[in-house]
Amino acid sequence: MSDKDLIESGDMKIGWVRSHMPVLSIIRENFEREQPLKGHKIAMALHVEAKTAALVEALALGGAEVAITGCNPLSTQDDVSVALNTRDNIKCYAKYDCCSDEYYEAINKVLDMKPDITIDDGADLIFKLHTERTDLLSGLLGGCEETTTGIHRLKAMENDGALKMPVVAVNDAMTKFLFDNRYGTGQSSWDGIMRTTNLLVAGKTVVIGGYGWCGKGASLRASGLGADVIVTEIDPIRALEARMDGHRVMSMTEAAKYGDIFVTTTGNVDILSKKHFEVMKDGAILANSGHFNVEINLEELTAMASSVRTVRKNIKEYNVAGKRINVLADGRLVNLAAGDGHPAEVMDMSFANQALCVKYIAETKLENGVHPVPHDLDMYVAELKLKSMGIEIDKLEPHQTEYMEGWECGT
Amino acid sequence: MSDKDLIESGDMKIGWVRSHMPVLSIIRENFEREQPLKGHKIAMALHVEAKTAALVEALALGGAEVAITGCNPLSTQDDVSVALNTRDNIKCYAKYDCCSDEYYEAINKVLDMKPDITIDDGADLIFKLHTERTDLLSGLLGGCEETTTGIHRLKAMENDGALKMPVVAVNDAMTKFLFDNRYGTGQSSWDGIMRTTNLLVAGKTVVIGGYGWCGKGASLRASGLGADVIVTEIDPIRALEARMDGHRVMSMTEAAKYGDIFVTTTGNVDILSKKHFEVMKDGAILANSGHFNVEINLEELTAMASSVRTVRKNIKEYNVAGKRINVLADGRLVNLAAGDGHPAEVMDMSFANQALCVKYIAETKLENGVHPVPHDLDMYVAELKLKSMGIEIDKLEPHQTEYMEGWECGT
Amino acid sequence: MSDKDLIESGDMKIGWVRSHMPVLSIIRENFEREQPLKGHKIAMALHVEAKTAALVEALALGGAEVAITGCNPLSTQDDVSVALNTRDNIKCYAKYDCCSDEYYEAINKVLDMKPDITIDDGADLIFKLHTERTDLLSGLLGGCEETTTGIHRLKAMENDGALKMPVVAVNDAMTKFLFDNRYGTGQSSWDGIMRTTNLLVAGKTVVIGGYGWCGKGASLRASGLGADVIVTEIDPIRALEARMDGHRVMSMTEAAKYGDIFVTTTGNVDILSKKHFEVMKDGAILANSGHFNVEINLEELTAMASSVRTVRKNIKEYNVAGKRINVLADGRLVNLAAGDGHPAEVMDMSFANQALCVKYIAETKLENGVHPVPHDLDMYVAELKLKSMGIEIDKLEPHQTEYMEGWECGT
Amino acid sequence: MSDKDLIESGDMKIGWVRSHMPVLSIIRENFEREQPLKGHKIAMALHVEAKTAALVEALALGGAEVAITGCNPLSTQDDVSVALNTRDNIKCYAKYDCCSDEYYEAINKVLDMKPDITIDDGADLIFKLHTERTDLLSGLLGGCEETTTGIHRLKAMENDGALKMPVVAVNDAMTKFLFDNRYGTGQSSWDGIMRTTNLLVAGKTVVIGGYGWCGKGASLRASGLGADVIVTEIDPIRALEARMDGHRVMSMTEAAKYGDIFVTTTGNVDILSKKHFEVMKDGAILANSGHFNVEINLEELTAMASSVRTVRKNIKEYNVAGKRINVLADGRLVNLAAGDGHPAEVMDMSFANQALCVKYIAETKLENGVHPVPHDLDMYVAELKLKSMGIEIDKLEPHQTEYMEGWECGT
Repeated sequence: MSDKDLIESGDMKIGWVRSHMPVLSIIRENFEREQPLKGHKIAMALHVEAKTAALVEALALGGAEVAITGCNPLSTQDDVSVALNTRDNIKCYAKYDCCSDEYYEAINKVLDMKPDITIDDGADLIFKLHTERTDLLSGLLGGCEETTTGIHRLKAMENDGALKMPVVAVNDAMTKFLFDNRYGTGQSSWDGIMRTTNLLVAGKTVVIGGYGWCGKGASLRASGLGADVIVTEIDPIRALEARMDGHRVMSMTEAAKYGDIFVTTTGNVDILSKKHFEVMKDGAILANSGHFNVEINLEELTAMASSVRTVRKNIKEYNVAGKRINVLADGRLVNLAAGDGHPAEVMDMSFANQALCVKYIAETKLENGVHPVPHDLDMYVAELKLKSMGIEIDKLEPHQTEYMEGWECGT
Repeated sequence: MSDKDLIESGDMKIGWVRSHMPVLSIIRENFEREQPLKGHKIAMALHVEAKTAALVEALALGGAEVAITGCNPLSTQDDVSVALNTRDNIKCYAKYDCCSDEYYEAINKVLDMKPDITIDDGADLIFKLHTERTDLLSGLLGGCEETTTGIHRLKAMENDGALKMPVVAVNDAMTKFLFDNRYGTGQSSWDGIMRTTNLLVAGKTVVIGGYGWCGKGASLRASGLGADVIVTEIDPIRALEARMDGHRVMSMTEAAKYGDIFVTTTGNVDILSKKHFEVMKDGAILANSGHFNVEINLEELTAMASSVRTVRKNIKEYNVAGKRINVLADGRLVNLAAGDGHPAEVMDMSFANQALCVKYIAETKLENGVHPVPHDLDMYVAELKLKSMGIEIDKLEPHQTEYMEGWECGT
Repeated sequence: MSDKDLIESGDMKIGWVRSHMPVLSIIRENFEREQPLKGHKIAMALHVEAKTAALVEALALGGAEVAITGCNPLSTQDDVSVALNTRDNIKCYAKYDCCSDEYYEAINKVLDMKPDITIDDGADLIFKLHTERTDLLSGLLGGCEETTTGIHRLKAMENDGALKMPVVAVNDAMTKFLFDNRYGTGQSSWDGIMRTTNLLVAGKTVVIGGYGWCGKGASLRASGLGADVIVTEIDPIRALEARMDGHRVMSMTEAAKYGDIFVTTTGNVDILSKKHFEVMKDGAILANSGHFNVEINLEELTAMASSVRTVRKNIKEYNVAGKRINVLADGRLVNLAAGDGHPAEVMDMSFANQALCVKYIAETKLENGVHPVPHDLDMYVAELKLKSMGIEIDKLEPHQTEYMEGWECGT
Repeated sequence: MSDKDLIESGDMKIGWVRSHMPVLSIIRENFEREQPLKGHKIAMALHVEAKTAALVEALALGGAEVAITGCNPLSTQDDVSVALNTRDNIKCYAKYDCCSDEYYEAINKVLDMKPDITIDDGADLIFKLHTERTDLLSGLLGGCEETTTGIHRLKAMENDGALKMPVVAVNDAMTKFLFDNRYGTGQSSWDGIMRTTNLLVAGKTVVIGGYGWCGKGASLRASGLGADVIVTEIDPIRALEARMDGHRVMSMTEAAKYGDIFVTTTGNVDILSKKHFEVMKDGAILANSGHFNVEINLEELTAMASSVRTVRKNIKEYNVAGKRINVLADGRLVNLAAGDGHPAEVMDMSFANQALCVKYIAETKLENGVHPVPHDLDMYVAELKLKSMGIEIDKLEPHQTEYMEGWECGT
């Protein structure tokens, strides 16, 4: 495609999602009018596709200078990247399927802008800032982190006394994780799997690794598509929840024997590894919806395989002792690497939180460490979202508030 | 029924649930062997039915002297009450359908034992201790509270500086509220409604007041039974969750026009009141699953009604301007007042928490105020439960723990 | 209870369901006005509970003389039976828990009226007419049959050339089996199981024997209540449907090892027998929703058991080699023998078909053999039902009818 | 793409689905060995994508000469078409997005082979044979028809006395319509809608036009994805089913006001037309899953629109009085025109029926008219499918068969 065609395609995609992100649109309008980010430099490492572009636009319109790169080599959409580069005050360095060197070089380029605010999805920028670019730390007001995995990493840093900047845990906003991680991952993972395989979900045994919010969403939609769902967990309480939700629960070593399709959502390594590949059925399909491509141990799988070949776009077949094991999107997050990522409406809420938290960082002196999203921002996002959906809910009447605050009425 | 028949019937009911409460059974065996409650006096106000009896037995076998009464006039099962009174070290004062005076008199009798530990479901004992029986406060090591409503009341007291004893918020244990409030209330409310009405749930418009854990459970089961569900909320985030779960969300004033069956689960007053009764359809059915009978304003309904009559056991028909409005179980919690309460398996987890928290109070010097259930107790209950269900789950391998604790691996 | 109390209780029950059977109510009003059954004598053997009573009343008000008995010893509700006997032109002989002799004696008494029309649920009257009471055959205009099992039996008779009267297969009306067998059995079976056991369905492995309309309904509701469902079948197409609906499918010999609760819905014998009891888990619960109590082989179970005792109302525990196997309602249909039967709204449709078919038999000279319900009656019931629910649907416009009847428009 | 690349891509796609069509694979092996189609000429008009190619290969390997073209201008995948043309005894004339003239010219080319057997999806070949190519009718042994719409058209012809050849209604095999129409259309429609829009289904109001098997499948999956579903129908019985399945049911004129996404599945014209467009909400999304592109009246929509533009691949936005109405895939079947069609596993069953029915036509002298698929073929497909899924089911024991055939056992 020519650059002109890429721009047109990117613009069209961005336009489409923008019209389905009403909360972010309101914030963008406010930003444009009020210029709360005037003079700020924002470095971003996020999945560069249309919804992200809508966030980038809003930040730039709010007065900021923005530089962005990808947070996963396979999730960048080049048309969106090229289109972003046509905007004022925006520089995008992301490229689809770039090699590891290019990937980290792009991160460095983004940081070369000397940002005072960062937005991460997986903490790659912050990690780079704390290792090779420590010179930039002093200039930082704070960062936002988008994903469970990133928060986990940042809290580990904080526990080790290694975190030298304030970070807002955007992922932990209720209007983020309850929706994006659950309904977003739930739908987009299966969208990715269905379009990539053209196989029937109904009547399949689906194994979901992990029953956090992403795993809950993936399981809910697997059931909704007619699958027989098995869940694996390490947390006994989540394991009980999975069972009470009607799923079978067992160890992965056991589940590996039964699964037709596997989806990992844990944020941990080696959820599927040698001992599991050994007992899988011929034709098993493996997909990952976790942030990093570490959940399926492809090194071990490759070592076991007598041959590897592409059998459909985004599907690699590993021949292991006569069995075919099919890996989608090289174990990268299947919803982004083999799809268009989360639906626009959930990213509307997630990125509304991002935009509001960037403003919050710009306006607030935060201590180093991991901070929650202020509850009133969270509620504001929810209220705008409801309004955009045309939904009116009840308000407490004074005597109801009084009852809830009182304690003297009993049986 | 003769006393002998009552005892036999009560014993049979207790025996049945005991064999379906494996976690509590393990704890009971440990208690019997280790006598951790030796010398303690436990005052209880809980729904006196078979599962509660199993808890009472465990506490008494653990060495305690126990006195118990009901926490709702319509939830007592007399056979269970009579059977409990045949046990050593147990005194039960609960009576079905007692009047308000008898109800509070029984609470006083229970307190007359001079307890050092209390167990409440709705905080009635603690309220009495803080008003009329303040002389007993000094002897108290602490109390346990079973329900969301009670916790709410106690936190209101704490905020007012009025709480003069330590209380463990058993309701807030994950192995309690995620299961009891959701799957327990979900099933038992509909069990109560179905057996009381013999009407079809499928194809009905069901309005659920509130989308907390109880409301989520009631909605989930309503959908599972084929209903078209409308949810009302005051919290915008919960309202969004309800919508994303496929339900319609609107104000109660609007929902009141459409509902065939209404179930309130909010813990607040006047969820259904005059303005709602006015617009309801002929034949509407009203049930409450919240702790107190304040959610449906029966005073207003009675004032509006030209006549009230019983049309089936536990169903009162109010004739309002030619429309029939049917109230189940006088607006008392429908699962207990018109059924047998939560399934034994969820009460197994809830009451395992109660038993462990009583021991915890007996062994620990707690400050005045509301305390969480220690996480290790919560996990212990989950682990025993999984084991009793024959479910084995994964354990983290060392390199997985290391990965989760580290932060240096990225994309 | 005194007879007066019984009558009052029965009248109340009948009144309640009558107000929830709007289609039958319209037919009753028409019958009362038009007297289409004037001079006819109708013998009935149906489950004598409130919904059936509403049908009996409609027939009597339509001019008929009606005699009725039960079609299952455990499904009669005595208060309804007594109340029916207070009506003009109605004689009811059914008694709860009567012995086999009484049961057949009552059938004979009903036939003593020399009916010209019969209504059966399971074909017991017709079987008696073709064996011991063949003298009455010549006086018969025809009969109606309510249930799959009865139709099956009658078609077997027809195939053998043994059927000597016309019978209308009311069960096979779409407004009957699609609703009564599916949504009716689905809900009422689980209502019966839940109220009888007070156990949690969520997280249980439920085994459904058969995936006909009753089995589909029972499975749908089991899933809806949070169970993990296994289906057994002998028909490969139904087995595939069950699998595509997300259930596991296997032989009963295999399923018997995993089930916590078993529900049989096949209409055949020995769905659960010795070889299954042998491998069941301790605590397994067995319920039957099929017409006859032949699906669970209690003779074999009794022979295997070292002891049998009642452990809760309507639950017998068989001790088999140290395992407890719990049988609900002695293997009689659990929704009627341990509950109130199908919800009123589905029986409204089933019994509207019955009433209309009785009229059809009265007005039409039918050949001996099994006849379908005329399609226009079926549609009439559906239309009245929709209307009673306040639902308006689309009508074909003339050019749409034309399109559907044409064949000349293509791609 | 070069032809070599197209062939490679097509071969890869065909290889993938072939390995997921185990029943067709067994039939292909039998065909290859037994050559049942030796000397036969088969003309086909089907959606030319990978699953169809697998059928074409099986027929050619069975000895037939095969010519094929598309049955919808937007459902052809050119790589598959080119790859098919590399096979012996196969000629493929289909081209993606061809104009109407090319479309009908290709149909003529296919018929030029002088077939003795036809396979249609929508009856286009048969219609052409009965209008412009009647000379070929005498040479025909019979045809197979794949879809509800085609059967409808053929029965209309039969009723008019216009059908001059035998046709087997493959659509009406239970192993076809219960699976392909329900689970196939259900999944693939939503796959198409999700990948085309990248919008969230959860929390949307989805309107399904029609509640036949396709509509049931589309509704089931919409609910499973978290939508709030409204169904429109003209048949009162289906309308009641939809309501009992928990959906709202109303006229399309009413539903048009509420829908966020509309999916038509009726086989009729003008399901969505001017009066509906007028009341739709801004942003409404319209998709068709019915066979022909007549269900959404695009002519009326175009006439009402002030502008039409492409806003995303396969999405046209019609600006109607300031509202944006988005039409997917120009109202062509969304699962094929904006996706890869049904999952391989359901087409395995549908096309196994096709292959077996072609053989049946080749071996059987059929009368002119529409014939059912012989029941034993249907059962054979089901049995092979179960076997391929590793599922074993129960067999009737002799005494169970006897019971089912007998009629002398009663209560």
